[in-house]
Amino acid sequence: MEKFKVTFYPDNKTVEVEKDKTVLSAAISAGVYINSSCGGDGVCGRCKVILKKGEVFSQSSGRLTQEERKRGIHLACAAQVQSDLEIEIPADSRLSLEGLTQEEVNARMKKDYTEPEEVEPAGKSPSEGEFVFAPLSRKVYLELPAPAADEKLSDLERLERQISLAGNISVRHTCLSNIKSLGELLRSSDWKVTASLGKREDFTEILLIEPGDTSCKNFGVAFDIGTTTVSGQLIDLNTGKALGTKATYNKQAQFGSDVITRIMYAKNEQGLEDLHRAVVADMNQMIIGLAGEHNVDLNDVTYAVCAGNTTMIHLLLRVDPTYIRREPYVPTLNFVPVLRASEVELRISPRGLLYCVPGVASYVGGDVTSGVISSGLYKQEQLCVLIDIGTNGEIVLGNRDFLISCAASAGPAFEGSGVSCGMRSSKGAIQKVKISSGSLELSYSVIGGVKPLGICGSGYIDIIAGMLGAGIVDKDGKIKEAKNKKVRQGAEGREFVIAERKDSANGKDIVITDVDIENLKRAKAAIYSGVSMLARHVGLDLAKAEKFFVAGGFGTYLDMDNAIRIGLLPDLPRDRFVFIGNSSLSGARQMLLSSGAVDTAREIAKKITYLDLSAEPRYMDEYMAALFFPHTDLLRFPSIKH
Amino acid sequence: MEKFKVTFYPDNKTVEVEKDKTVLSAAISAGVYINSSCGGDGVCGRCKVILKKGEVFSQSSGRLTQEERKRGIHLACAAQVQSDLEIEIPADSRLSLEGLTQEEVNARMKKDYTEPEEVEPAGKSPSEGEFVFAPLSRKVYLELPAPAADEKLSDLERLERQISLAGNISVRHTCLSNIKSLGELLRSSDWKVTASLGKREDFTEILLIEPGDTSCKNFGVAFDIGTTTVSGQLIDLNTGKALGTKATYNKQAQFGSDVITRIMYAKNEQGLEDLHRAVVADMNQMIIGLAGEHNVDLNDVTYAVCAGNTTMIHLLLRVDPTYIRREPYVPTLNFVPVLRASEVELRISPRGLLYCVPGVASYVGGDVTSGVISSGLYKQEQLCVLIDIGTNGEIVLGNRDFLISCAASAGPAFEGSGVSCGMRSSKGAIQKVKISSGSLELSYSVIGGVKPLGICGSGYIDIIAGMLGAGIVDKDGKIKEAKNKKVRQGAEGREFVIAERKDSANGKDIVITDVDIENLKRAKAAIYSGVSMLARHVGLDLAKAEKFFVAGGFGTYLDMDNAIRIGLLPDLPRDRFVFIGNSSLSGARQMLLSSGAVDTAREIAKKITYLDLSAEPRYMDEYMAALFFPHTDLLRFPSIKH
Repeated sequence: MEKFKVTFYPDNKTVEVEKDKTVLSAAISAGVYINSSCGGDGVCGRCKVILKKGEVFSQSSGRLTQEERKRGIHLACAAQVQSDLEIEIPADSRLSLEGLTQEEVNARMKKDYTEPEEVEPAGKSPSEGEFVFAPLSRKVYLELPAPAADEKLSDLERLERQISLAGNISVRHTCLSNIKSLGELLRSSDWKVTASLGKREDFTEILLIEPGDTSCKNFGVAFDIGTTTVSGQLIDLNTGKALGTKATYNKQAQFGSDVITRIMYAKNEQGLEDLHRAVVADMNQMIIGLAGEHNVDLNDVTYAVCAGNTTMIHLLLRVDPTYIRREPYVPTLNFVPVLRASEVELRISPRGLLYCVPGVASYVGGDVTSGVISSGLYKQEQLCVLIDIGTNGEIVLGNRDFLISCAASAGPAFEGSGVSCGMRSSKGAIQKVKISSGSLELSYSVIGGVKPLGICGSGYIDIIAGMLGAGIVDKDGKIKEAKNKKVRQGAEGREFVIAERKDSANGKDIVITDVDIENLKRAKAAIYSGVSMLARHVGLDLAKAEKFFVAGGFGTYLDMDNAIRIGLLPDLPRDRFVFIGNSSLSGARQMLLSSGAVDTAREIAKKITYLDLSAEPRYMDEYMAALFFPHTDLLRFPSIKH
Repeated sequence: MEKFKVTFYPDNKTVEVEKDKTVLSAAISAGVYINSSCGGDGVCGRCKVILKKGEVFSQSSGRLTQEERKRGIHLACAAQVQSDLEIEIPADSRLSLEGLTQEEVNARMKKDYTEPEEVEPAGKSPSEGEFVFAPLSRKVYLELPAPAADEKLSDLERLERQISLAGNISVRHTCLSNIKSLGELLRSSDWKVTASLGKREDFTEILLIEPGDTSCKNFGVAFDIGTTTVSGQLIDLNTGKALGTKATYNKQAQFGSDVITRIMYAKNEQGLEDLHRAVVADMNQMIIGLAGEHNVDLNDVTYAVCAGNTTMIHLLLRVDPTYIRREPYVPTLNFVPVLRASEVELRISPRGLLYCVPGVASYVGGDVTSGVISSGLYKQEQLCVLIDIGTNGEIVLGNRDFLISCAASAGPAFEGSGVSCGMRSSKGAIQKVKISSGSLELSYSVIGGVKPLGICGSGYIDIIAGMLGAGIVDKDGKIKEAKNKKVRQGAEGREFVIAERKDSANGKDIVITDVDIENLKRAKAAIYSGVSMLARHVGLDLAKAEKFFVAGGFGTYLDMDNAIRIGLLPDLPRDRFVFIGNSSLSGARQMLLSSGAVDTAREIAKKITYLDLSAEPRYMDEYMAALFFPHTDLLRFPSIKH
């Protein structure tokens, strides 16, 4: 097979690939990240690259203009290598996968909400409803009596007896590697050792035996593995204190922006391995970073807890995710046995354990279970709702008596995908917008205070709400003809200019188009109708919802009134909304710190009913009715009506 | 470091070793087996080899005569390589490690004794006191309902539910390797699969999932790992039937004939690994042989149960055995967690499990626990005794109310080691001897019906009993001066000729010497005084013992009257003695076939008290009193007195 060299600029990275491979796959091999929302299907048009030298064979794509073709622009996913190449990746096409800044990380963590289900710190007795501090791994310092002529218990039994005396813990399993030189270890350390004890499903294992007293050094990591963002937290398991939090973009994004494209990518040779390695690399990078910053030895990190959607957990474990997207949409597993963290190459102690928060169904994963735990939804007396506005838009409705869930396939519009100037809520994103109804004067703020590069979800909500207020867009979502220079005819219908090219970071106009509004309308309709469908299914009035938990980074910059104005959220009194930030990560931390929370998570995951919206005949009516701003039925939105 | 080539004849095997290495270690590297009872200490004199060519540096040894030195004979353990060598190994020095013949194997298995504690075969309900048939691994064929729109249990939960329905078994753990492609496996096999379920300590694991119905193919292996002999049995886990049994000499013998020399050898670089590999090679050879003979695929062997003395189990697991022989003689472990058989390189199914029968103390191992199970000793109403006459001479005394044990360090004399013409009870061994008291006419039978090569334990017992009867030896064990050509003066005192060189296989006289008789007397005294010490310790009369179980291959050729005549066994009515053959292997089989037997074994191992004879002041009196034939106190041997 003929091979060619492909060099990417400005990275200046070269890779050798076989003839006819795509430029996108060459980029993946080279470790160069190109935007590819659709996973290489030639549909999203995000992977534009400039051919500087050499020859490619490109299938024609409607995504490229005549002018772009003349400038040597190709879609990386459709261009097949025919010779040695030099390729330039424009800033637009570059997938930014650096870690989030600490400011961004902090913004995504819940700030103003005191979780009802927090773990009581070590040393304090828990208040009612709180989980008892009982971390999934403990280090216990032991001083063993030496064996004597009249007391000849074997070394291992002696150790187990002392553990039982010290912590009232009955241990049940130990690996051969700990046993092999136990005799020497106990004697050379004068019978003073520290045992690391890890919780398995329903027994405790001796993970490691170290000489002397190392009990003060015991740490854990909690992870939320999101499709877009991976977050991690390093926790001192002696005090329960979170030492630091990091977040980074999920490197799997190079293989597709949503779970479906990644599941398809997993079918490729080595595809599953690529996806697995990408996310594990993110996690390890965070672990190493956090450990370094807090002077923690990785060998002292003895437990990891991961919450994530069902596909993310399959990919983490290298479990074939194929059937998640095939009817009737059944995952391989929701309840993951406790594993050795090294089985998935997590770089914590080689004997450390990994617990994955159990999920409910293919599209309601452990991240939702984790959110239900950390929000305390499952023990509320009154009806409550939890939503995570993201690609899947998971929704849980219920109280201490019942829990029902669904996934509204909202699509990634609110995460900046599938909209012309969309981007994630990171540096350069227009996140807040005000449009004065008279002059149509427009003001916006940009994350990081830089020139704008695009618009993120909260920005779009503000824009549509503002346009509705100013009468630039009708209830159906069509931009009205207006004698305003900001409204103009574009290639795909009318568009409204948010920032002119002179003000933008990439020299292009930042606009919202008719098509964008249509996509955002569908996304908000999917979420709203999911919520109302769940209420209808159980015969309860949504207006009675006592608390409405909004999870995810999305809530950070969200303007509540605007979100209700466009009909994304139901029109409840504003004080019932609670932004709980990354509730998946919070829940994972709680489980790491309390085996009681693990037990509760198991019960919850079994208890939550899953409603498949696509199989609900009434759902289409609900959805269609929601395809207006705010809704066909204005009685549901009394505060907007006036 | 200078290296030399050493070639061994008649094997014609060459190995390259560093200068100054011993010829014995070169032989070990070359895979040539030389007798080395003392483990290379230059004491036993068994490793004589003939230097044909080249130069060695030999430390002087009293074990070689002037004449032997002239003939170029060296001790392999004391000869250091100084040049390329050619070495001949005489037949005497060769360690025979081939498998035992089927005849020998059969002879070692209990024949005429129906075990009280046998497992009831599959399909029958157990009688009182029998273990219920519940093998440690099962294969269950399952036809799963396919998931549907209204029933979306995950693949793994679906499988677990069906297992629970099929066998009322709650499974708890599955390895990632089974999960990874479970989705594909279930669908490609049309939801018809066979699950292999293995018992861990107190839960059941899904070991393997196979397409279609393979439930008829499920096998296990039971092992008894003896210091001298390793025995294995292949068992059909569907029927409980033993398909075949094999036995072979423990290849660890090349590193020393008893546990102490092997523990010392384990201290060498790679020593522990050498010992581990040697015994595992024996076990694998048996598994492969048995599987081949019975058309069993090794992948269908899903469980292994091993009984062995404490040192053998440490070596099997590569656990450092050092402290077994250091005061206060504490093993690293008596209770071994259930392991993956592959962790010790056993060649059964890669997912198969290994259970080691729990031991009691450093010198009372799982083989004894296993014997207590299979003899049914632990549930007898009356006082009973179990002895295994071997190097350690383990003894258990008790009934259903109590069990007490000890190890009488008898030494390996009855296994043919440490006596001038001793050998194991294999082909060429004089095993039965009759001496007419008048003419001193002597007749013997040889195992295999060939020319004699040496004398095994049962032969020695017959010889001493015969000599006592004929008055050639006194009660103290000294050969009397006699005007008989069979009695003569040898290098180490008087000796009595059993077979002349013209009749022997190696052209040497086969004799018993004063020193031999002294060694055998000490061995029998150690065993007898161990038994009587236990009885004395609990204040019970040995004469009241209802049953006296004699375990081990030793019983096969043993003449009961002669054994009592020399004072090895107590003088009980003959019908109270029960030869139970390889009770360790029988017990291991029972545990493989019944988890109830496993539970019982655990209880028994915890219940058995261990009496350290060396720490008992009264033991020395007992031992001294037993250093006569049959005993100082003839009142104890009423049938001999007359």
